[in-house]
Parts: sequence; structure tokens; C-alpha cells
Amino acid sequence: MLDMRKENCIFCKIMEGEIPSSTIYEDGDFKVILDINPAAKGHAIILPKEHYENIYELPEELAGKAMVLAKKLAAHMTEKLECDGFNLIQNNGEIAGQTVFHFHLHLIPRYQDGNNKDLLTWNVLQYQEGETDKLAELLKID
Amino acid sequence: MLDMRKENCIFCKIMEGEIPSSTIYEDGDFKVILDINPAAKGHAIILPKEHYENIYELPEELAGKAMVLAKKLAAHMTEKLECDGFNLIQNNGEIAGQTVFHFHLHLIPRYQDGNNKDLLTWNVLQYQEGETDKLAELLKID
Repeated sequence: MLDMRKENCIFCKIMEGEIPSSTIYEDGDFKVILDINPAAKGHAIILPKEHYENIYELPEELAGKAMVLAKKLAAHMTEKLECDGFNLIQNNGEIAGQTVFHFHLHLIPRYQDGNNKDLLTWNVLQYQEGETDKLAELLKID
Repeated sequence: MLDMRKENCIFCKIMEGEIPSSTIYEDGDFKVILDINPAAKGHAIILPKEHYENIYELPEELAGKAMVLAKKLAAHMTEKLECDGFNLIQNNGEIAGQTVFHFHLHLIPRYQDGNNKDLLTWNVLQYQEGETDKLAELLKID
């Protein structure tokens, strides 16, 4: 099953060099490439070399390493690109905006004079009375 | 300097119990609360207990731990809320949508019939010829 999915996965093909990419970083666990559909100049994505569909499948150890790498790259890219802000975004599921079903973590530099100004504005959901307490109770982990 | 910022920080006040919050998880490093301006039902945020302004300031160790926690909570919340997708979002700087300057990682459940459908769609930036190669060269880490 894992092999089948991998066979039709464009990020796995990039890993194997079957599809070209602009790589900016690589180690034993990850490859970091420029996104071909960038939201802003320098937009890159962190990809685990192994095929994991999403955050649910990604092993804990790699999840932790991915964020440490994201921190390093955010600092590095901010310096090199002289950007004014930075978003880290990771989508799971089509409804969440995931288009390639191989885990990836977006590194998106933001610029004062850049495009997609409203990338992360949302309409605030109004909870009904008592709904917040019920949700907190439902989600609470002791 | 750190103390002064902390004094006027609403998340630090939440940590100290001066401002109430709906807490769903807490350990020695983090507190996880429901966002009071939710993009979707159950929207929560992971907050380090210590004051770090953003991903640049957050120590590596806490960055890694935050993502391991995000993975665990994504699985837990998806099960409890029966949502159809999940976004992890972390904003740095006003231009990137950061409104409280104490590091936080958004955990946003997504629903097929939910609101904010276009939360993460963006206008694709068209690179000029050769620009991708120049960017990859600029950003490359050996």
C-alpha cells in the first residue's frame, strides 16, 4: 500500500530525481525545495524523504526535527531574502488546502509590499453561549 | 527588556491566571487553549509558558517539542471533533498575521461544511525567467 501511493506521488518522484526541483537544503531525513506555486518570493517546502501522507502518519521524531529545521530555515531565509515576516503552514486533508498527499511544511516569507496580504485572515466563528466550555471539556487531556 | 514585554503580553497574563482561558492541555513547557477568535470550531493554540516573541526567539528544543505536541493534538482533536482536515499555522510578524507577540502555533480543525473555505488559497506568484535559479542559489545551504 505504501509503495503504491509512493509510486504516484510527485514529491516521491522529486526525491528520486525523476522530477526536477530547486533544492535549497538536504540531509538524511529531509529535502527542502522551492514551491512551484509560490505565495511569495522564496516560498519553500520541507519534505521528509520517506512518504508520509500527513501529520497523522509522520513519526514523532520527524515531526520534531521538521520544526527545528523550519526554525533554522526561517532565520536563514529571513536574512537572505530580507523579508518582513514569516509563516509556517502545514495542511492536512483536501478541505485544509492540501494538494499533494506527501507531508510538507510550507515556509512562506512575507513582505510589506508583497502580494497575498490576506493570506491568513479569517471570519471569526461566534460560539454560542456555553459552547466554549463544552468544547474545552470535550478536548481536555489530563 | 524581556520582562517589560512580558508584562504587557496577554498570553503571559493567561499563563499567570490573570486572564481566564479554556485550557485543554498543559505540561511543564506549554499550555494549549481555545482561541477566542476561532477560524473554526475547536481552533486551539499551543503557547510556550515562557515568553518568546516568535519562531526566531523560540529555543530549538521547544520548537521540536511544540511540533510533537501539535501532532499528538491533531490526532486527538480530529478524533474528538470528527473534523475532515487540519491546519497547523504559525505566524511571525504583523505582515504575516501575527497579532499577539508571544509565539503560538495554531491548531485549526477543518470541516467539509465549515466556514473560511478559502483560508489558505493564494494567488500564485509568477517568477520571471531565471528567478527560481537565482533564488535557489541565494538560499542554498551546503
